[in-house]
Amino acid sequence: MASSNVHLHGIYPACVTPFTAEGALDVAAVRHNARRWLDTGIHGLLVLGSTGEFVVLEENERDQVIAAAREVVPSDRVLSVGVGHLGTAQTIRQTKRAAELGADVALVVTPFFYKPAMTHAALVAHFTAVADASPVPILVYNVPPFTGLNIETQTVAELSQHPNIIGMKDSAADAGQLAAEVALSRPGFAVFTGGARVLHSAMVIGCIGANLAVANIAPELCIAIYDAALANRHEDARRLQAELTAIETAIARPYGVAGYKVALDLRGYQGGYARAPLLMPNAVARDRIAAAVQHLESVTAEALAH
Amino acid sequence: MASSNVHLHGIYPACVTPFTAEGALDVAAVRHNARRWLDTGIHGLLVLGSTGEFVVLEENERDQVIAAAREVVPSDRVLSVGVGHLGTAQTIRQTKRAAELGADVALVVTPFFYKPAMTHAALVAHFTAVADASPVPILVYNVPPFTGLNIETQTVAELSQHPNIIGMKDSAADAGQLAAEVALSRPGFAVFTGGARVLHSAMVIGCIGANLAVANIAPELCIAIYDAALANRHEDARRLQAELTAIETAIARPYGVAGYKVALDLRGYQGGYARAPLLMPNAVARDRIAAAVQHLESVTAEALAH
Amino acid sequence: MASSNVHLHGIYPACVTPFTAEGALDVAAVRHNARRWLDTGIHGLLVLGSTGEFVVLEENERDQVIAAAREVVPSDRVLSVGVGHLGTAQTIRQTKRAAELGADVALVVTPFFYKPAMTHAALVAHFTAVADASPVPILVYNVPPFTGLNIETQTVAELSQHPNIIGMKDSAADAGQLAAEVALSRPGFAVFTGGARVLHSAMVIGCIGANLAVANIAPELCIAIYDAALANRHEDARRLQAELTAIETAIARPYGVAGYKVALDLRGYQGGYARAPLLMPNAVARDRIAAAVQHLESVTAEALAH
Amino acid sequence: MASSNVHLHGIYPACVTPFTAEGALDVAAVRHNARRWLDTGIHGLLVLGSTGEFVVLEENERDQVIAAAREVVPSDRVLSVGVGHLGTAQTIRQTKRAAELGADVALVVTPFFYKPAMTHAALVAHFTAVADASPVPILVYNVPPFTGLNIETQTVAELSQHPNIIGMKDSAADAGQLAAEVALSRPGFAVFTGGARVLHSAMVIGCIGANLAVANIAPELCIAIYDAALANRHEDARRLQAELTAIETAIARPYGVAGYKVALDLRGYQGGYARAPLLMPNAVARDRIAAAVQHLESVTAEALAH
Repeated sequence: MASSNVHLHGIYPACVTPFTAEGALDVAAVRHNARRWLDTGIHGLLVLGSTGEFVVLEENERDQVIAAAREVVPSDRVLSVGVGHLGTAQTIRQTKRAAELGADVALVVTPFFYKPAMTHAALVAHFTAVADASPVPILVYNVPPFTGLNIETQTVAELSQHPNIIGMKDSAADAGQLAAEVALSRPGFAVFTGGARVLHSAMVIGCIGANLAVANIAPELCIAIYDAALANRHEDARRLQAELTAIETAIARPYGVAGYKVALDLRGYQGGYARAPLLMPNAVARDRIAAAVQHLESVTAEALAH
Repeated sequence: MASSNVHLHGIYPACVTPFTAEGALDVAAVRHNARRWLDTGIHGLLVLGSTGEFVVLEENERDQVIAAAREVVPSDRVLSVGVGHLGTAQTIRQTKRAAELGADVALVVTPFFYKPAMTHAALVAHFTAVADASPVPILVYNVPPFTGLNIETQTVAELSQHPNIIGMKDSAADAGQLAAEVALSRPGFAVFTGGARVLHSAMVIGCIGANLAVANIAPELCIAIYDAALANRHEDARRLQAELTAIETAIARPYGVAGYKVALDLRGYQGGYARAPLLMPNAVARDRIAAAVQHLESVTAEALAH
Repeated sequence: MASSNVHLHGIYPACVTPFTAEGALDVAAVRHNARRWLDTGIHGLLVLGSTGEFVVLEENERDQVIAAAREVVPSDRVLSVGVGHLGTAQTIRQTKRAAELGADVALVVTPFFYKPAMTHAALVAHFTAVADASPVPILVYNVPPFTGLNIETQTVAELSQHPNIIGMKDSAADAGQLAAEVALSRPGFAVFTGGARVLHSAMVIGCIGANLAVANIAPELCIAIYDAALANRHEDARRLQAELTAIETAIARPYGVAGYKVALDLRGYQGGYARAPLLMPNAVARDRIAAAVQHLESVTAEALAH
Repeated sequence: MASSNVHLHGIYPACVTPFTAEGALDVAAVRHNARRWLDTGIHGLLVLGSTGEFVVLEENERDQVIAAAREVVPSDRVLSVGVGHLGTAQTIRQTKRAAELGADVALVVTPFFYKPAMTHAALVAHFTAVADASPVPILVYNVPPFTGLNIETQTVAELSQHPNIIGMKDSAADAGQLAAEVALSRPGFAVFTGGARVLHSAMVIGCIGANLAVANIAPELCIAIYDAALANRHEDARRLQAELTAIETAIARPYGVAGYKVALDLRGYQGGYARAPLLMPNAVARDRIAAAVQHLESVTAEALAH
């Protein structure tokens, strides 16, 4: 069942899901954005992750996003689909559906409501059940800033032995933990970082790529860091990483998903609106986001010129 | 729209939702348990809260639980229904449905995925939207151990001004915070504690009652503490509180919802099974739970004798 | 060796240590303040606690503060002296010296640098060594906001069996934990709260008093809450507690020890200066502190009139 | 006053301070260990850091350790001395004394008792006062696991402008934070990591070296990782980093400073005893430490063979 890890490598935006002002899903914008991202040379797309507001979508809306992305993403790039519900049965249902609609891999978030009960045994049981049932390979998704739960390295190591669990995305932004996940898992287990601040580090210590919210607006810059790190051009990677961190700090930290949507509009994408309970940034915030985007564009131009 | 707070006072179990070994909802067990709890003199029932595994139920299963509870709970006791989805629109839909099916009040959890974005403004907007749309009064539900998010007292104070937000359940187990919520909210705003360890304190500092997971198995003991505290029999309240804390520590801390289900079976209720990703306790755990229940029964007998 | 717990009950300010503008210890101000506090009917004084900046005092300065306080505190009130160094040997030396200079009890902080190493066994060994060596009874001091370490209830329970460990001060502001400490320790073990926000609760659930930073500036209000709680005048206690919490929130939360020093000057005490690294409040902060003190004085006048 | 950063680069053990079974300082062992570390090719020594139990030493003992180390460390290697007291005045006194006794640089820990008061302004004032007074350049020391306080990157950036603050040691083990500290500080500001788990990452993202507790027992392995990282032999660096992380996990996590002392004895150093409140490992722990040391020795032999 497993696809080769070779094809997984690289930078994927953790794509936003655009909504209209009235809160309806904007499928045309999904397609528009996907085409633009692919034009930058991005290696894959992750839809319906945390940045994709998966938690506020109805099942039929999920289907539309996956189908629209699949239409646009060619077979030589990866379509990763976030699945994950707080229950195991529902997670399996979503994973099967994602596979039917063309997902190459499913990114399965740790169940996170009953935190004290999410022991090693419970997490192994959950992910094993999902992996057993899934027609496509799965990636474990660890995202402590949102879930309030950090998976143990030993749990990752055990899960990596399952033939249908081919990797993970770890958004803990902890390079030591990423290195341990690479070291203790089976050879070839694909570890992506979800932490923009450690992109440079991650590529040196053995990760195969990154799925990043900031790659929505800065795909070129992320790719430039990725390339520089792999080519051992560490001075370049450091300089670009500092810019990426600054942009993430300016937009993601205060404004989150909604901030990225505003920034996308400014970069020629269609970010659209966020759904409640997320609020859209106010005028002051929009000015700050605009300034950050302006700076990003000059940095991007410079990175592309090299 | 608001009902009088007078009727809200008291102890409510945060009822478990029983499932069969195959994971199916056991509606007959819902009814059976509700009748037994009501026989203990309990003041109301909370269904579909955290202990009710609301996060792993389908919409039609939610409906069945509410309807079954409504059948059994007489009109002079309260049926509180947990609602709450990570999206505002879905939360409104669930709240309306709960009202249609006979909920007296809806207990609305704070949205908790995008924690950094859940600012004062975002929470006020969310709860105001739900309260505006709800046919029944709502209670704000703060449960940091599961959500990883603690609502600010000033947010509670502002929300308490809404005519359809008549109170809150705070499971932070922080008596100082409970006292501040009572003090800073509009007079008559009904504050329930969800923290068993502070039941005695809560009743002295102005809370009107408690919605407790441990009241599934120890309703008599909870009522005894509640009565002793209100009657200023503080020596009695202290002694019983120490027993309640010990029982909660023995069962809830290590085993959670699944532990309570095992304990319920031992006390003549029908706890049934938990749904994955929750795991049922193993044999060692069952022995410990059995010992705790045995002790509980002797404490209960003694409390009832007074 | 142990003195009777009977005499320990009540409210003690966690006294500030006044310094001159040049940073010198102001012993005359120590005496002045002690006399004023005693005039309010306060039950004891705690010197050289966290609020007393014990961490920036030289040994000879510690001696002067203890001696000055002992001169003023009559034998029917309690002089509690904070001791505690990050090493066990040094803590023993300080405890013996405090006893020589007239301390009635020593308040011994948990060692807090090597947090992961401060296991049950390490804490039991430390406090046992200090208690064995101390000529006066000791109290265990738990202050997580400053130490980053919270002592386990079972550790307290074990320590309470030592004949020279007669109680504790717990500044965790957690009423459930305070109740458990009372319940699980040997009968008569004296538990003080150090959390102003839970003063009312603490007096109901079995604590014998409080050692509070806010009692530096609001001794009358703290005594009024203490009296109301013990007399089961809970409506009064709630109202006054809300005022105390508001004052603590206005001064302690943003400005800490230095804020209390400014407020003391405004109330006729001699707060003096804090030592670096603490900074004194700026002009804006001083205005806010002045407003809080003005409100405190009207609340105090009202409380005293009852 | 500033010395050139060129000479600071490299790996320094954060040296233990050996005590006899009776708790006396063992100066001969200080010298013995220093000579052995220098024989491994280590670039410098850090004495009186966290691992050096600086918090339980008397002033005259501090003097003896510094003098003994200075005797042994040649002028072309660096002697860094940990200073830091919870008060600013005392920190200045210790820094001056360290300089008198031959320290090349002083490593000044963030004051950490009044955590909420340790704002940007307070930390800038503290370190500026120390740097102004110090005869030798200083490094800022950030060690959140022990202090419970994490310095902000912007505070580091501002401090880096002071001519006598030439760098920092950051033990947060956060590669993203290390990269930001390098990027936002003045060019040439020397950032050391104190987190063994991120040694490989740190050397790629612009740190100039590491001061590590684990380098007490594994100096050869740390140097091998350092060299491999700088030579872009990342496969080697990853493999060795995994071993280093495993050894640190086996010894430091459960047993801390006392664990390293036991391990040092096994490696031909003189680790000696820890002082209370630290406890020495029991027999089971000693067996585990011995197994880890045995593995370390085979890894070291292999690393040296390359």
